[in-house]
Amino acid sequence: MVGGGEGSFIGPVHRMAAQLDGRIELVCGAFSSDPERSRRSGVDLYGLSAASSYADYEQMFAQQAAKPVGERMDFVTIVTPNHLHFPVAQAALNAGFHVVCDKPVTHRLQDALHLRALVERTGLHFAVTYNYTGYPMVQEARELVRSGALGAIRRINCEYLQGWLAADLDNKQANWRVDPDQAGVAGCFSDIGSHAENLIAYISGEELDMVAADLNRFVPGRRLDDDGNVLLRFGSGARGVMCASQIAVGEENNLHLRIYGEHGSIEWAQMEPNTLLVRLADGSTQVRRTGSAGVSPAAQSITRLPAGHPEGYLEAFATVYGRFADAIGSGVASGNRAVNYPTIDDGVASLRFISCVVESSERDGAWVSTHEEAAT
Amino acid sequence: MVGGGEGSFIGPVHRMAAQLDGRIELVCGAFSSDPERSRRSGVDLYGLSAASSYADYEQMFAQQAAKPVGERMDFVTIVTPNHLHFPVAQAALNAGFHVVCDKPVTHRLQDALHLRALVERTGLHFAVTYNYTGYPMVQEARELVRSGALGAIRRINCEYLQGWLAADLDNKQANWRVDPDQAGVAGCFSDIGSHAENLIAYISGEELDMVAADLNRFVPGRRLDDDGNVLLRFGSGARGVMCASQIAVGEENNLHLRIYGEHGSIEWAQMEPNTLLVRLADGSTQVRRTGSAGVSPAAQSITRLPAGHPEGYLEAFATVYGRFADAIGSGVASGNRAVNYPTIDDGVASLRFISCVVESSERDGAWVSTHEEAAT
Amino acid sequence: MVGGGEGSFIGPVHRMAAQLDGRIELVCGAFSSDPERSRRSGVDLYGLSAASSYADYEQMFAQQAAKPVGERMDFVTIVTPNHLHFPVAQAALNAGFHVVCDKPVTHRLQDALHLRALVERTGLHFAVTYNYTGYPMVQEARELVRSGALGAIRRINCEYLQGWLAADLDNKQANWRVDPDQAGVAGCFSDIGSHAENLIAYISGEELDMVAADLNRFVPGRRLDDDGNVLLRFGSGARGVMCASQIAVGEENNLHLRIYGEHGSIEWAQMEPNTLLVRLADGSTQVRRTGSAGVSPAAQSITRLPAGHPEGYLEAFATVYGRFADAIGSGVASGNRAVNYPTIDDGVASLRFISCVVESSERDGAWVSTHEEAAT
Amino acid sequence: MVGGGEGSFIGPVHRMAAQLDGRIELVCGAFSSDPERSRRSGVDLYGLSAASSYADYEQMFAQQAAKPVGERMDFVTIVTPNHLHFPVAQAALNAGFHVVCDKPVTHRLQDALHLRALVERTGLHFAVTYNYTGYPMVQEARELVRSGALGAIRRINCEYLQGWLAADLDNKQANWRVDPDQAGVAGCFSDIGSHAENLIAYISGEELDMVAADLNRFVPGRRLDDDGNVLLRFGSGARGVMCASQIAVGEENNLHLRIYGEHGSIEWAQMEPNTLLVRLADGSTQVRRTGSAGVSPAAQSITRLPAGHPEGYLEAFATVYGRFADAIGSGVASGNRAVNYPTIDDGVASLRFISCVVESSERDGAWVSTHEEAAT
Repeated sequence: MVGGGEGSFIGPVHRMAAQLDGRIELVCGAFSSDPERSRRSGVDLYGLSAASSYADYEQMFAQQAAKPVGERMDFVTIVTPNHLHFPVAQAALNAGFHVVCDKPVTHRLQDALHLRALVERTGLHFAVTYNYTGYPMVQEARELVRSGALGAIRRINCEYLQGWLAADLDNKQANWRVDPDQAGVAGCFSDIGSHAENLIAYISGEELDMVAADLNRFVPGRRLDDDGNVLLRFGSGARGVMCASQIAVGEENNLHLRIYGEHGSIEWAQMEPNTLLVRLADGSTQVRRTGSAGVSPAAQSITRLPAGHPEGYLEAFATVYGRFADAIGSGVASGNRAVNYPTIDDGVASLRFISCVVESSERDGAWVSTHEEAAT
Repeated sequence: MVGGGEGSFIGPVHRMAAQLDGRIELVCGAFSSDPERSRRSGVDLYGLSAASSYADYEQMFAQQAAKPVGERMDFVTIVTPNHLHFPVAQAALNAGFHVVCDKPVTHRLQDALHLRALVERTGLHFAVTYNYTGYPMVQEARELVRSGALGAIRRINCEYLQGWLAADLDNKQANWRVDPDQAGVAGCFSDIGSHAENLIAYISGEELDMVAADLNRFVPGRRLDDDGNVLLRFGSGARGVMCASQIAVGEENNLHLRIYGEHGSIEWAQMEPNTLLVRLADGSTQVRRTGSAGVSPAAQSITRLPAGHPEGYLEAFATVYGRFADAIGSGVASGNRAVNYPTIDDGVASLRFISCVVESSERDGAWVSTHEEAAT
Repeated sequence: MVGGGEGSFIGPVHRMAAQLDGRIELVCGAFSSDPERSRRSGVDLYGLSAASSYADYEQMFAQQAAKPVGERMDFVTIVTPNHLHFPVAQAALNAGFHVVCDKPVTHRLQDALHLRALVERTGLHFAVTYNYTGYPMVQEARELVRSGALGAIRRINCEYLQGWLAADLDNKQANWRVDPDQAGVAGCFSDIGSHAENLIAYISGEELDMVAADLNRFVPGRRLDDDGNVLLRFGSGARGVMCASQIAVGEENNLHLRIYGEHGSIEWAQMEPNTLLVRLADGSTQVRRTGSAGVSPAAQSITRLPAGHPEGYLEAFATVYGRFADAIGSGVASGNRAVNYPTIDDGVASLRFISCVVESSERDGAWVSTHEEAAT
Repeated sequence: MVGGGEGSFIGPVHRMAAQLDGRIELVCGAFSSDPERSRRSGVDLYGLSAASSYADYEQMFAQQAAKPVGERMDFVTIVTPNHLHFPVAQAALNAGFHVVCDKPVTHRLQDALHLRALVERTGLHFAVTYNYTGYPMVQEARELVRSGALGAIRRINCEYLQGWLAADLDNKQANWRVDPDQAGVAGCFSDIGSHAENLIAYISGEELDMVAADLNRFVPGRRLDDDGNVLLRFGSGARGVMCASQIAVGEENNLHLRIYGEHGSIEWAQMEPNTLLVRLADGSTQVRRTGSAGVSPAAQSITRLPAGHPEGYLEAFATVYGRFADAIGSGVASGNRAVNYPTIDDGVASLRFISCVVESSERDGAWVSTHEEAAT
């Protein structure tokens, strides 16, 4: 693990998620750019030996790479602030390690494209932790939409609303997210809008065509967006809207998706993740539930408990790790179609989305194309 | 009553709502432009005598106006398709009758402005049935927001989603709503977007400044929008988004409003109208309920039943009639500040909103000012 | 109307419900045993003339009966405290008037049996306002259960929980309900337990066989039960439990029914009355909604508005009146099978249930048979 | 671990829960009474070496006990069918190991009392996995009730409803639960009624006084109860009802608790475990949420993620393990007041409850005292 030292939220989350299924173990880490802090985090927070708690990631990669296969770490998890994802990921790949990287995969679109090329060249696995794809009912939604049961998609509504940055906070979690040097060109849209973009794509398969955005900075002095609304046009003719906010007082972690097709619609909400509503044009409404009979084999395959035993955020996150472990274990290359973790391509798509949203907002809501040739 | 003949949905609704509190009685009507049909509707549908079922509204206004006060009708309710609102309303006012008119108040903004001038000149009462303002928890939301308890408003999300026009219907209810000659410049945004606009204004008091709209026509051959998303900017600096659709399969009548301020937020949904969620920046969430102790006197005053005895759409609609009856009964003029029914000013604001939304969409989502000088 | 004078909750409810569909009009009343109060209630509360506001019900029945048919009232609604239901109902029937009577139909089982005999003898219509039977989704539940779709019924859970009598109140609504001389042998179980009993019977058709009850009086000084739990055994072998309380702080009017059969189950809650959950043994869950396509014709026939336009307590209550008006209008006798309002038989069944529950509780929860021969 | 071999549901759950916080590691096990199956489970299911996968628990205890402290296992987890809990637990304690035992702690009350004596004598820690006590909102409920905020408790409603045994299943999970030789004197009430009993006690602190039960066997040929309802009387004067069923078709794992006091009430449902509803006599309703500001420090201390990141069944289960690890780590004896895992005393109380319920049902619902002197 790189990053995730004392005070980190996401480091322990990755540790718990990775280990949940008993297949992955944290064996070493460079938890902080401060060597003493890294050592302390490794020993006190993660129960590692001091020797396994490296002073920096370069040292860790070098020493681990020098070990024989079987004794060295199998992959690297990157949980630093956004701006460090790129150099660490690049170094890890160059040292021959598979990578799990928190999202957004990089700070800038250009860097994500470089990583993509590097992944292609090395054939190493590279997952971006779009953890919300790991919920069984997200999988069920994907199966349903892609089966054609809803008909042609017409409207997509996706919201990701939080309230925790509604006032000017001064803590580690808040600070880097609102600092352009660490977070990138966007704040709220980089941190959570990217999840919304990925969730839309993962479930619907719709290809985004254009965005028109109105980003806001409500808290005085804030240098990046803390809120915004984006109109969406998809290549198929579907339309949509995405709302993301970190100043929506009272919202906890409200990621909410609705997709409307010609013949039916679905609704899923992250805060009650084990329920998927399916409404059909004949007036009927079905409630599909994690673990219940009748859900798809794909959803069942990532369900750990019987219906009614709530699975949550960590379990979904663990599924991303499990899929990554499957891929590594299977010996296929990262480009293989059987890979079902979120890949560098997903990471690139998010970065492109973020940069288009920022550009549109700077141009007062003009429509901006999200196509590769246009955006790079 | 003018309009509301056989096959009408809204005519019987107005009749039930008007009579609910036992203060208003339907005494006569011109229910259809077809005299025989009007007579039949009056007798069979509304239980009136044939003599009280007029062949046309001009005749009705003339004959009723000729009666002495106390024997003639007290006011006119207009429930025709949109394009007839204006001539009927004009005639009623000119004949000296107060008017209750379904929304949108007219077909075109220009007509609404004429009606406004006529109302001002005559001092007669003119209500537009923005019936959702009549729910106790809408009143509670208004009291709360206007008390300043949420702090400065930052974000407003309002949706009004229906699915009943997802396919090409051929019935009376559907046909006029999708016909520009009867419905006006907009379809979905005229029919239900106008309710959303009014609800935002009624509760928040925020003045709209600019809109950027992306309207859609999903059903082949449809001549007016059946779906759309609008970015909103308010004069205060607040931002928002409105989604309206009549092709959102599976949605029944989902009018849903959230308002986020600096210190708190509210959420209200028309389909569970007796609940108002209030979330505060300290992390607490309160559930306010129609009829329960602790809600504001303003909300209590329009509550008919104890808490837990659900009040619904008709009761809210009846409240608009009750407030109109109060105003007439009180003898004040229509411009009086005590008037608390939705007025011609609300009707004008909606028309202006609709025309700006249509203009913005035609200009590919350009920001369009909603200010009076700009929009007329 | 007899009863329902100033300060009454249920009088205005009956008036609004009866008039909602425009078929029934309040033409006269004896609103209080105090003549002046009766006159004042008639004039001020119900907008009647002083002449139509009688000093007492005997006088009203006599004078109305003396009028020619067509000019006299068509039926009598009884909304007095429980102990007066019997003498007023008896007098009304003897005077030749159909009767709508609030529940419980009488104070004592013996009186209900006398009324039943009188109804049989006169052939007059007699409805008991088990108003919760008027909800469309209650009708839907009944259709579904009786279709056999759930298989043999095994378990029934019904709760009716309120909190408004949790402390010692001193007001008109509370006082008579806790006074054995006015309310009868039971308090909470007479007032609301009777609704629960009726709802179970109406939907399931299961015949109650035995009850074992534990009634409580939590508020010091209270002379009748304000809370209790009852074990239920049905003749078919099904089992169940009923909870009723008026001291359940925080509960508004929580009437909630679940029925479990071999192949499926249903769930309905009065506070969200437009939703019926249907869960089947194959793991699927359906949400049925008032007014939506696919619900039974029986439920549609008592639905006034399109789906998503909430109908509530008054509408359900109005349906009971509408069914009563249908029956009167049809000219059939009260024993006719086509009658679909809640009858005197329902009233008798509730009284028997109440008396068995009280007896069981007095015998420390012994099982008591609810069969006619046993209980009378 | 003892038990938990191939096909076990609860074995992997214990493993995931124990390891979630990174403090506990599965080091060895006797997973089946069949040595080959035990070995296979250890290697294939749990990733242990063959040497750590013992042929039987006696062998494991002997060999582990022979190792020096620090090298041997720290405690034993027992996840066998109920009838084996006692001999395994006894052997573990006698070998000097702390024990975590699934519920119900034994097959028969008498055995539980023996274990209690053994725990007292050895001072070893003994936890019974009443895992639902580990939810943050259960902790919050406990804090609130015990603070006196609800006033004296009057009514408790607890349900635990499942539907998975509605038909005659033939699988490992189902078979032992319906076999008196493996499950004990009760079926449904042993398997899930015991959780309900424990949850009531854990949150309310109310001491049960008497029960009157009506247990059922709906599936033909079933030898133990698969459903039942129990009236509850508490020493304080509070009353209640418990419903438990495994034939409630459509129910997943619906453990639901409501407690009503003089001044307020709470409601918690296991299937949406991160919400606690608090309703007060002043008419206000609060929604308390896992992880949100304002919840008690006790609830915060067992919360792993920020509000809105759902925590579920495994996390709650992990909390029981975490508390057990705390106790072992602290060096205190099992009788210490600081111990906050569910203890052998909880296990004994459940067994006593189960045996009283069975006795009452056999005596046709007679009230049976749950006091120690009475029940043993």
